[in-house]
Amino acid sequence: SESRVAILTVSDTVASGAGPDRSGPRAVSVVNSSSEKLGGATVIATAVVPDEIPKIKELLEKWSDVDKMDLIITLGGTGFTPRDVTPEATKQVIHKETPGLLYVMMRESLKVTPFAMLSRSAAGIRGSTLIINMPGNPNAVAECMEALLPALKHALKQVKGDKREKHPNHV
Amino acid sequence: SESRVAILTVSDTVASGAGPDRSGPRAVSVVNSSSEKLGGATVIATAVVPDEIPKIKELLEKWSDVDKMDLIITLGGTGFTPRDVTPEATKQVIHKETPGLLYVMMRESLKVTPFAMLSRSAAGIRGSTLIINMPGNPNAVAECMEALLPALKHALKQVKGDKREKHPNHV
Amino acid sequence: SESRVAILTVSDTVASGAGPDRSGPRAVSVVNSSSEKLGGATVIATAVVPDEIPKIKELLEKWSDVDKMDLIITLGGTGFTPRDVTPEATKQVIHKETPGLLYVMMRESLKVTPFAMLSRSAAGIRGSTLIINMPGNPNAVAECMEALLPALKHALKQVKGDKREKHPNHV
Ligand code: NA
Repeated sequence: SESRVAILTVSDTVASGAGPDRSGPRAVSVVNSSSEKLGGATVIATAVVPDEIPKIKELLEKWSDVDKMDLIITLGGTGFTPRDVTPEATKQVIHKETPGLLYVMMRESLKVTPFAMLSRSAAGIRGSTLIINMPGNPNAVAECMEALLPALKHALKQVKGDKREKHPNHV
Repeated sequence: SESRVAILTVSDTVASGAGPDRSGPRAVSVVNSSSEKLGGATVIATAVVPDEIPKIKELLEKWSDVDKMDLIITLGGTGFTPRDVTPEATKQVIHKETPGLLYVMMRESLKVTPFAMLSRSAAGIRGSTLIINMPGNPNAVAECMEALLPALKHALKQVKGDKREKHPNHV
Repeated sequence: SESRVAILTVSDTVASGAGPDRSGPRAVSVVNSSSEKLGGATVIATAVVPDEIPKIKELLEKWSDVDKMDLIITLGGTGFTPRDVTPEATKQVIHKETPGLLYVMMRESLKVTPFAMLSRSAAGIRGSTLIINMPGNPNAVAECMEALLPALKHALKQVKGDKREKHPNHV
């Protein structure tokens, strides 16, 4: 079945109305254009929150537990400044870490710019929802999605609990 | 002295008798054929447990604390399905993380298949025992061992507490 | 403004007077010669402590909270022996992890020696101080610094809280 996707823009600037959300719409577009490779995927919800752990956690928990999203992508708040807390909020809500996703996103992002080493992105599974942090830079979503696409469809099927979807080569 | 190795197959299917253990025997064979490069290594114990955190932890703790294994390799339960909990059990028993081992296993496994990014393997040290998660796919053990072999003998000597075995170039 | 740097050598041998500190002076030299690329950096403090978690934590906390260092580099105690506890001490004091720094240090160090996989280095941010573990091998500092230099100046500006220093391509 179609994967239900939610996009969370984390940004004080956007949340306060002081600037436009350039990353959120790009992420929606990237998910839509990747839909076929994801086995079908639709962005069901988008939201913007400031860089505050309680507000980030609230959305992640609601989208996972109540709205049963299959995939949540967060944008922004992954850097080194004092306000960047998206990975900390994410680590507080996930039940399982998925370090291989971080590995491939880091590896591919470093091919674009050495500043990619400043991403502190976290990723993991809460219930049957996969949550992935991506940097707020509008180009980062496309780069990160490109890194994940070879296995993301399979990841989503596993997260939904389909045991048969275990790849024969990687139980 | 010879390293004492234990192999833990984590699989509901195998534990229930519904399917054969294809990974465990392969792991024994891989360890035996790597014995010389490991400075001598013998598989002392093997076991199969279902994908349940308490049962995984029980074996890891017994093999570390009572049976004084030098190396425990777990097979399976590292994926994204709800039943995959081997990394969570492992993280609950290790005292120290060994992220470099995960790095080289991920890097080498990705050369074989992009599905390697779905491994959530953990690795670390409990007392004087090194514990390493590997995917349940029978080929994964050989691939992961290949990635570790250039430094695994040295790792085991360090874990046993031989200060002199600190490599002159990497204190 | 100039970055304030502190170097902590973690070594039972050096702390007890049984051997010279070969890594500390090398680290000072590496920081000084990298100063321009770091946007200005001066080593303000150096110290030696034994491989004991409370003593390591004490210095890291004092240098972060009281002495307001911008960057603390620790040397040694990152291996697999029972006395190696620098990453554990570090993880207890940092508020945020910076995994991308570990990624590039591991990637570059593995180009020099496969024994680099035995580094268990941690890195992260405490308040407005960036703390990075490096292996005690005197050559490791130069190798690790080389890996970090393309983004370390930027990292330090972000840690100091300069929002404007967010790289336009990596919010
Ligand atoms: Na790599």
